[in-house]
Amino acid sequence: MGQAEIIDGKKTAGEIRKEIAEAVRDMKEAGRRPPHLAAVLIGNDGASETYVNFKVKDCREVGFKSTLIRKPENISEQELLNLVADLNADEEIDGFIVQLPLPRHIDAQRVITAIDPRKDVDGFHPENVGNMVLGLPGFLPATPFGITELLRRHGISASGKHCVVIGRSNIVGTPMSILLSRNSEVGNATVTLCHSRSQNVVEIAASADILIAATGRPGSVTAEMVKSGAVVIDVGTTRVPDPQKKSGYALRGDVDFKAVSRKARALTPVPGGVGPMTRVGLLLNTMKAAKG
Amino acid sequence: MGQAEIIDGKKTAGEIRKEIAEAVRDMKEAGRRPPHLAAVLIGNDGASETYVNFKVKDCREVGFKSTLIRKPENISEQELLNLVADLNADEEIDGFIVQLPLPRHIDAQRVITAIDPRKDVDGFHPENVGNMVLGLPGFLPATPFGITELLRRHGISASGKHCVVIGRSNIVGTPMSILLSRNSEVGNATVTLCHSRSQNVVEIAASADILIAATGRPGSVTAEMVKSGAVVIDVGTTRVPDPQKKSGYALRGDVDFKAVSRKARALTPVPGGVGPMTRVGLLLNTMKAAKG
Repeated sequence: MGQAEIIDGKKTAGEIRKEIAEAVRDMKEAGRRPPHLAAVLIGNDGASETYVNFKVKDCREVGFKSTLIRKPENISEQELLNLVADLNADEEIDGFIVQLPLPRHIDAQRVITAIDPRKDVDGFHPENVGNMVLGLPGFLPATPFGITELLRRHGISASGKHCVVIGRSNIVGTPMSILLSRNSEVGNATVTLCHSRSQNVVEIAASADILIAATGRPGSVTAEMVKSGAVVIDVGTTRVPDPQKKSGYALRGDVDFKAVSRKARALTPVPGGVGPMTRVGLLLNTMKAAKG
Repeated sequence: MGQAEIIDGKKTAGEIRKEIAEAVRDMKEAGRRPPHLAAVLIGNDGASETYVNFKVKDCREVGFKSTLIRKPENISEQELLNLVADLNADEEIDGFIVQLPLPRHIDAQRVITAIDPRKDVDGFHPENVGNMVLGLPGFLPATPFGITELLRRHGISASGKHCVVIGRSNIVGTPMSILLSRNSEVGNATVTLCHSRSQNVVEIAASADILIAATGRPGSVTAEMVKSGAVVIDVGTTRVPDPQKKSGYALRGDVDFKAVSRKARALTPVPGGVGPMTRVGLLLNTMKAAKG
């Protein structure tokens, strides 16, 4: 057995950020203002802080304008809906996100649905989800979008292949399964969507040419679930305590990396695989929103 | 080998129509007007005429009000969009459909997207498609809706089972695959969506506990594609010339009925299987629209 090629998402994301930065320079030289992303952060959740800070940093790096709007944990749903309405109406803002999760007293779906679909750069609004299903223009959720870009730029075609997606969340597994099955450049795969209720997941996973793990359970995708020569994409980014790290935690993927890397043809690492591509997905959506 | 149970969609549809008729009587007795469906028919396509006439007849049978709006083949896109706007605004109409296909000079997607999602009883508007994906309230496309009702009322649970859907159209295969995979009473299946680009369709189909054929090619689903004891749902309704019929044609399903009925546990016939359930799906949506 050989060793799997490591699909370097960090490197690919860096290349895409360079392309975006060049496009932003072109916009500015043509006298246009740069794309502008706003991010709404409620409360003080550690992981949410980290994610939003990354988003702001990414914007700076490619030359986007960004605005971080912080609100306290006890903001009312109506206050947040009013803020969303303001952002919808603000012509200086091309796209915005409301960082999830939201405090329990706020109906997250209601907030998402209040976002103007044309500014919904997270791609979570029902209209954008429907557009994705129907192959119409719209915003794709960042993680599935990033994964299709990663596959495309590594010359991995899904067309006609059997793709198995494990995990059916609204933001990763489900849209991933839909995107891969569409009649499109990155699609045309035969797609099986598995989840916690699925029987025979091991056998089904082991029949995949391309396996996408989005279970959120570290190490849950073992070598017996991987066909020899398969491509494996690991969406998992679970924080596990690690006293050796300055942050006090390490990121663990859903895939048993060491064992699977001896069996797969190619494999994304965690960190440095899907994570950076997700961040780039948001930048690509914001650029699209700015171009209108 | 035994003979498959024939899943009688005509009978089940009749039972549902009775339930709807009773609910309409209750509405009228409570002093409310009955549900009102409008259907827009453009031109003189034979199949479209038949379908729309069935819809009007179904409405009459359950006590709905219906309005058939005929427009000539050469109606402009703008005229049709104006008509859609009028129907959106008409408080006496609960839901309406624009019968497809439309003449080539009209952008069908543009027309569908112009329909108020709250009156889109075909469930084709992107917002309703997105709501279906996200498990939010909305209208489900009639054929997948009818099929899930048929399974439910025949005590066939998809939960945990492997369902294979062949065909990825926007109105049948794709929404069917989504509905069956959702975390819901009729869902929780492991779903594989196959299509014209899929490799190994025969093997994949033969692994299905529930096989849903929506290829539109008569007899294309053969016995070798069916696992012993599987449930087979035949969505095909292709018109083939038949001089022995008064109409001059017969309806043929996608499934090789005779051979498959010796292998499957249960099977829908054509006609009398999915077709009547699709018609009932529209009635259920119209009732829902009326109740608001």
